[in-house]
This record gives sequence, structure tokens and C-alpha cells, in this order.
Amino acid sequence: MAPILVDNSKSSTAERETYVDNGFVHIKNPHLDMLSEDILYHFDLGTKTHDLPSMFGDVKFVCVGGSPNRMRSFALFIHNELGLDGDGNNIVDICAGTDRYSMYKVGPVLSISHGMGIPSISIMLHELIKLLHHAKCRDVTLIRIGTSGGIGIEPGTVVITDIAVDAFFRPQFEQIILDKVVVRNTQLHQELAKDLLECSREISSFPTIIGHTMCTYDFYEGQGRLDGALCSFSKEEKFEYLRKAYAAGVRNIEMESSVFAAMCHLCGLKAAVVCVTLLNRLEGDQICHSHGVLTEFQSRPQQLIATYIKKQLGVCT
Amino acid sequence: MAPILVDNSKSSTAERETYVDNGFVHIKNPHLDMLSEDILYHFDLGTKTHDLPSMFGDVKFVCVGGSPNRMRSFALFIHNELGLDGDGNNIVDICAGTDRYSMYKVGPVLSISHGMGIPSISIMLHELIKLLHHAKCRDVTLIRIGTSGGIGIEPGTVVITDIAVDAFFRPQFEQIILDKVVVRNTQLHQELAKDLLECSREISSFPTIIGHTMCTYDFYEGQGRLDGALCSFSKEEKFEYLRKAYAAGVRNIEMESSVFAAMCHLCGLKAAVVCVTLLNRLEGDQICHSHGVLTEFQSRPQQLIATYIKKQLGVCT
Repeated sequence: MAPILVDNSKSSTAERETYVDNGFVHIKNPHLDMLSEDILYHFDLGTKTHDLPSMFGDVKFVCVGGSPNRMRSFALFIHNELGLDGDGNNIVDICAGTDRYSMYKVGPVLSISHGMGIPSISIMLHELIKLLHHAKCRDVTLIRIGTSGGIGIEPGTVVITDIAVDAFFRPQFEQIILDKVVVRNTQLHQELAKDLLECSREISSFPTIIGHTMCTYDFYEGQGRLDGALCSFSKEEKFEYLRKAYAAGVRNIEMESSVFAAMCHLCGLKAAVVCVTLLNRLEGDQICHSHGVLTEFQSRPQQLIATYIKKQLGVCT
Repeated sequence: MAPILVDNSKSSTAERETYVDNGFVHIKNPHLDMLSEDILYHFDLGTKTHDLPSMFGDVKFVCVGGSPNRMRSFALFIHNELGLDGDGNNIVDICAGTDRYSMYKVGPVLSISHGMGIPSISIMLHELIKLLHHAKCRDVTLIRIGTSGGIGIEPGTVVITDIAVDAFFRPQFEQIILDKVVVRNTQLHQELAKDLLECSREISSFPTIIGHTMCTYDFYEGQGRLDGALCSFSKEEKFEYLRKAYAAGVRNIEMESSVFAAMCHLCGLKAAVVCVTLLNRLEGDQICHSHGVLTEFQSRPQQLIATYIKKQLGVCT
């Protein structure tokens, strides 16, 4: 068995205070300064080929989500909401040179897709955090707007995560580094979560709550689904597991929040996870709402985040 | 600590023999037959909305890879290689209704993207295996054609995986199911690997070897890279780890092979992993070859697989 280390040293109060002081993103890598060029391979960007400070220096909000189409829609939506000049339809994918991720910039807002699962979002976050560092961005807020399965709540409910938990309901993320397992903190920014809940009260058309989010490595067996190609447990065992999750405070399940929380925490980034639930897992496993209903559900976190960003920027609604 | 179970029962010799007998894909889920409709959500396909047997019943080879563009290129390439009628450029994305995956069908060959990382390919595989089952496909061979980092081998070398190992060099995949960790076999089809190596001898333009492939959950810290946003180890510790991996028989590192091997093994699918190496990790971490060189490297597994498929179909080269 590999040794397990707790990564407390990296997220001390002192470091959080440093963040408040200067607002820069923390890079926790002493080797990085020794690189003459940093190629952000999965973005098709680099420090020698692109002027990152002039391209990204004014970024204050980074919104990320799994689907490239959804993040393009969000960019168009926020362009209109902020009342920016020009035709939003001309917004170009900054990462057009690769199909790993899509990235759109709308004023101080960056909208990026991250694919599905912890490994996919983790690659994106490493390169994004380096990008924000190279671009000398300050006081950046990072928000994941995603989809999820709900537990015991009405489909369409938006869940703001207070803490991400693993499949055993533990508030931690295990990162394998060389031959060691390092345990990281998955708490999200509590004040930001409260501010977002406050914002949600201005939108009466859908329910929003704060709760724990369970982050799994798998959509089928890993989330107790009975409808995958493989399933070795009974319906009763599935429901027992989901009920235990509910009792532990879990209100939704997705596949990216734990590493997102852990990395943002370590790098001094104010971060939130805001996901809509597409179904109530106590009622079924398949996502069978109509395309129209699902599209409307998926717009809910976008509406909430747009309201928040506008407030922060002092843009009238 | 969660209990750890070894999933031997699911991959018995008896079951492998059944596969040889009837050639159908094994679904290991007794609940699936009880569904009146199976929605393959991430493909935007379903048993009630699509006639899966007529759409996919003749599929014999499924080739999967991370990038949607690369899997479209592969579809065009195999269309030309098989000398099929019509304009290859008219090949449509069967999953156009979603941006989670792309899927192209060219005669008996299906080409599908799976994104990056174990969770992303695992969702795709659950839905693909159910698709092959619903479509009543027989004698299907599944091949992952990907990119990877090499260890101690020349960049551009193609590695055919004999077995996938985890970050501790163990030939296994740990799947979390409800509150248990289930350990699964990650051996790939040895005869297929040998046949592919045999095919590679007909292509003299690049080196091909058989070796172990290490599958990690992370591209930066998880693969011992010194150029991520976070790095807590020294250059010496990195090289010690990579040298240990080499000594354990690892020749390349990627992020999908273990779950691919485990799921194919359980479902009686003949499967191979064939990845080109984009760099030698003993020499550096950044992928800094020119776009042209990388594109040529990425075409190598495609050329090898095209040669193999043509041989199997009796198409003259």
C-alpha cells in the first residue's frame, strides 16, 4: 500500500492571507521559473508564441463547464448580459488550434470547457492556473457551472457546493504524486457560496440550495447506476448507498468538483461549484427529460452566475 | 478504509469461451433487460429513437481515441484505405446531437472520440458496449489509438500495450462500486497484440514495440511532470520514479488504458491499445515538437490499424 500524506502545508491560513494581500494566483512549482518557454499544450498557447498578459491580463472571472457548446453559449449569454459592444456571434474560440478544450473571452470573463471527469478538468486547471499566472491576473474568481444528478431534490434544482466529498463521503481529494497518495482539502470558498445563494433569491424561477457535492470517477458503477454495461449490485444496495449519501449531506453527484476545489484552494483562487441537477437519483438513473427541458435546466447556473458577475462589476440588471 | 475485492468471478475462462462460441458482446448487468427504453445519453442515441441493429449491426472494428478531430481524420483515412464508394468528406458525426463524443461509421469500422482520462472513456465504453449489445454485433475488435509519453524510447515510437499498469506499476484497475473498491484485471488480448506487431513489420517508416503502459489519473503531478501549476518533488525524485517505471517494463504513459482493458476483458471484447509516444519523458516534460511532426506521429497508430483491418477484411493493400 502506498503511503498516504496529508497536504496541509500547502493551504495554510498564511497563504490564504497572502492571496488577499496581492490577489495574484499562486503557482506552487519552483521549477516553473526555470523554463525559458511554457507551452500550454492542451490550450495550444504558449509564453513565447502568445502575449498572455495582453490577451488575458484583465480577466476577473473564469467560468468552466464540461461541454464546449454550453461554454460557447455561456460566452454569448454573458456578452449580452454585460451589454458589451459588437456581435456576440463573432466570439472566437481562443483554443481553435486544438480540440481538447474550447475557450472564449468576453470582457473580463473567460469561458472554458473542461470535458468530463477529474483527469480532464485537472489538465485544464493546471494550464489555466499557469495561464493566469503568466498573464499576471489579479483577484480572479473561478466558477464551475455544470450538470449533476440530484439526491432527494427536485430535478432542475441548482446546488451550490460547500464542500466536495469522495465516494466514501469524505471531504478530501486523493492525488497520486509519484509513488505517494497525497490527501487534499476540498472546501470551497464559503463566503462566495453564500453570496451566490443570496443572488439566487433574486431569481424566483428555480430553486437553489447549498449542499455537499459527491465527486466520483465513474458515471455508472461509480454513482450506483443500474443501467450501465456492468452492474453487480442490487436495486436495494443502490438505494441504501444513495440514502447514506443523503444522510451525509450530499445533495448532488458529479465528476469534477473535488479536484477543482483542491487545486483552487492550493492556488489561492476564490472558487465555487454551481451545478443544476438533471434528475433525482432516488427516482431513476436515466436522463429522460426532453431536450428542451434539459436545455432550460442547463441555463439555470448560467443565469445565476451572470447575475453574480453583473453585481460584482456594478452592471445594472 | 474501504474493503478491496478482487473481481475474478467476472472474467472467468468459461466466460471467455462463451465469447469465442457466439461472438456477442457480454453485458454484465441483469437490470438492463428490465428497461423498456435505454437512452445512451452521452451519444444522443436510444433504443426507441434509433434502429441500432440496422445502424450498427455490421460493425466489426471499433477504433477509439481522445480527440474528436483525430477520430474524424481516422474515419476519412480508413474510408480511403478500404476503397469505399462515395466521398469520405460526407461522413457525418452520428453523435452530432451532443458534443460529449464524436462518432463516425465507415463500412464495418466505427471511429469514436472518448475525451481525456479514465472517467471520460469509461462513460463512452459503457454506452458503446450497450450499443454493440443492442445492435447485436458479433466478433467485434476494439482498438484504442492514442498519444502518450514514452519512457526511454525514441519519440514517435508506437507502443502496443500488453498490460496496463497503475501509478504503482500494478497490473490492475481499481473501480469504486458503491462503498467498495473492486480490483480488475487489465490484461489486453495477447494474440491481437502479436498480430499487430506482425503487421507493423510491413511498415518500415517507424518503430513499433510491445510494452507495459502506465495509466494515470493526472497528466502533471500524476506523471511526474515538473511543469504543472503544482509540483512538490525534485527533478531527481522524478527521474527515480520514471526509471523505476522503466525497470518495471513500462514503455509509455497515458490516461485511459487501464479502464479500457478492464471493461473490454469483462465484456469479452478482443481489445488492443496502440499509442504513439510524443516525447521521451527521460529527456523532458513539454511537448515541443512542431505541429507537423506531431501530426505525422499521430498518424502512425492509424496506419498500423488500417493495415491490420485491411488484412482482416482481405482488402488488398
